[in-house]
Amino acid sequence: MTEPLPQLSQMRCAVLGAGGFLGTNLCQGLKPRVASLRAFGRRLSFPSALTDIEWIPGDFSQPTSVATAISGCDTVFHLVNATTPASANIDKLADLQSNVTPTLRLLEACREAGVKRVIFISSGGTIYGLPKQVPTPESAPTDPITAYGISKLAIEKYLGLYEYLHGLQYRVLRVANPFGPYQTALKSQGVIAAFMHQCISHEPIHIWGDGSSVRDYVYVNDVVDAVLAAVQHHGPSRVFNIGGGQGRSLLDIVDVIKRVSGITPEIKFSPSRSVDVPRSILDITLASQELGWTPKTAFDEGMQRTWAWAIAQHQDGTLY
Amino acid sequence: MTEPLPQLSQMRCAVLGAGGFLGTNLCQGLKPRVASLRAFGRRLSFPSALTDIEWIPGDFSQPTSVATAISGCDTVFHLVNATTPASANIDKLADLQSNVTPTLRLLEACREAGVKRVIFISSGGTIYGLPKQVPTPESAPTDPITAYGISKLAIEKYLGLYEYLHGLQYRVLRVANPFGPYQTALKSQGVIAAFMHQCISHEPIHIWGDGSSVRDYVYVNDVVDAVLAAVQHHGPSRVFNIGGGQGRSLLDIVDVIKRVSGITPEIKFSPSRSVDVPRSILDITLASQELGWTPKTAFDEGMQRTWAWAIAQHQDGTLY
Repeated sequence: MTEPLPQLSQMRCAVLGAGGFLGTNLCQGLKPRVASLRAFGRRLSFPSALTDIEWIPGDFSQPTSVATAISGCDTVFHLVNATTPASANIDKLADLQSNVTPTLRLLEACREAGVKRVIFISSGGTIYGLPKQVPTPESAPTDPITAYGISKLAIEKYLGLYEYLHGLQYRVLRVANPFGPYQTALKSQGVIAAFMHQCISHEPIHIWGDGSSVRDYVYVNDVVDAVLAAVQHHGPSRVFNIGGGQGRSLLDIVDVIKRVSGITPEIKFSPSRSVDVPRSILDITLASQELGWTPKTAFDEGMQRTWAWAIAQHQDGTLY
Repeated sequence: MTEPLPQLSQMRCAVLGAGGFLGTNLCQGLKPRVASLRAFGRRLSFPSALTDIEWIPGDFSQPTSVATAISGCDTVFHLVNATTPASANIDKLADLQSNVTPTLRLLEACREAGVKRVIFISSGGTIYGLPKQVPTPESAPTDPITAYGISKLAIEKYLGLYEYLHGLQYRVLRVANPFGPYQTALKSQGVIAAFMHQCISHEPIHIWGDGSSVRDYVYVNDVVDAVLAAVQHHGPSRVFNIGGGQGRSLLDIVDVIKRVSGITPEIKFSPSRSVDVPRSILDITLASQELGWTPKTAFDEGMQRTWAWAIAQHQDGTLY
């Protein structure tokens, strides 16, 4: 049922949701390593970062665009997020229809096009809901408190079904809170980008809650390494937590930003939101065992690189 | 967040999917016990069984029909199955759109209408996929091998989300293979109905696989008792397995049919289907502990009553 995959250097790859933060980093990581790379998305946020890549603009909700994007490819990377955790809870049906429905169409298209493996970026921060066990392993209950997390979970299950019924291989990476270059403050993608942007713009840093909320942050290059490991993985597991290996509070983050930036920002506190889990740290033992992956970038180093990138964007006058 | 429920005798109830097998039995069980009962469905399969019930014909996929059906009710019973496990795998997207999408609309309507509790009939036979642990407890992994099971799982998760975000109470019953009066052989609802129908019609009994496939069968009156317990439940759990407490092979079923009918039917074997789990038995300890529920009907007694009903239908010339 499961056909052998080509070697990485022979792979013909399509990245869906390629124009954003993770997509830009992943395309940069894949490009020198694979036979061909097609990048599909609504908008190329950083065109200068992906100059020599085959870019196909299109909407994930348009079946023909997606079918064009994956045709001739053996490996598909699904990074599309049509919603955010907060927006998904406001219109749960829209979240379902803009994420799960087009993913089911994608899987059908993959099956028809003879795609061998799909790598799906799931959400380590929302899929477990309010975790009873921290750090949380992949086997923990999955009871999301956002429609966003439910959509990710449903997609994971459909991937399992397509492998079972149709031999379409898959790997799922439940990524914690990734940060790094190309993450913008525009679409509430992540607190680190938002905090840095506020700092650079001399605005107060805006914290939901009292700042004690603990999350798991992982540097984006480490996520790209995990994807590269998942694409070549042949072990028994399908779903892997990908995190930084430890938790940090929002106030910890602010401290590191102070250190790397030399700026002491004002902090503005707002009431916490119902979508926010108070404490989320992923157990990354399984990825270490089966993928041979651990995060390599020290947190401070990742933060320094991210700050350097943010400062450069600011100096270039790039809207980010 | 969770408002007190009225006493059973004060409850204003709506049963969605009321015209079928489970719905007919549930309406019969609820009618004498509750303040008001509205029955909603596409078709009333057995009009004479529900003569003094407020019947609202309508399609679950029509939001205004559903909103009408639940208006003024405090308790909603969601029994709708727009697909079967086999049909769902043929068109997974249609399954999603005909089950999950309208359920999300229903939950939004429940929230707007001030419904207090939703009871959802989930699928004990498909939600666990290929179970690693048999009998299978509610805490076991849920990796369905049918789109049908994935839809049920997604609905369970959305129910959890609506309780968390909006205080809409819910209970889920993961029902094994129910059997009993009003189950017909027409829509591949269950093997017992199909086998009895074949027996009465002097057709060979048609078995997928070699007959060793083990399932968990529960008499429908016991399921109705479980629903009545769930509607008044105040304990911590939300999801309960409801099964017969033991497994039986298809050949066991044929043996009992021989015994209750006095007929020795011919058996025709066909290759097993990919949607069929080889062995499925539910662990019903939790329902016993929290709902105070256990199945009361001995299997042979349930089979006798079911046979008597099937024979009566046949003698009446009713298409069933």
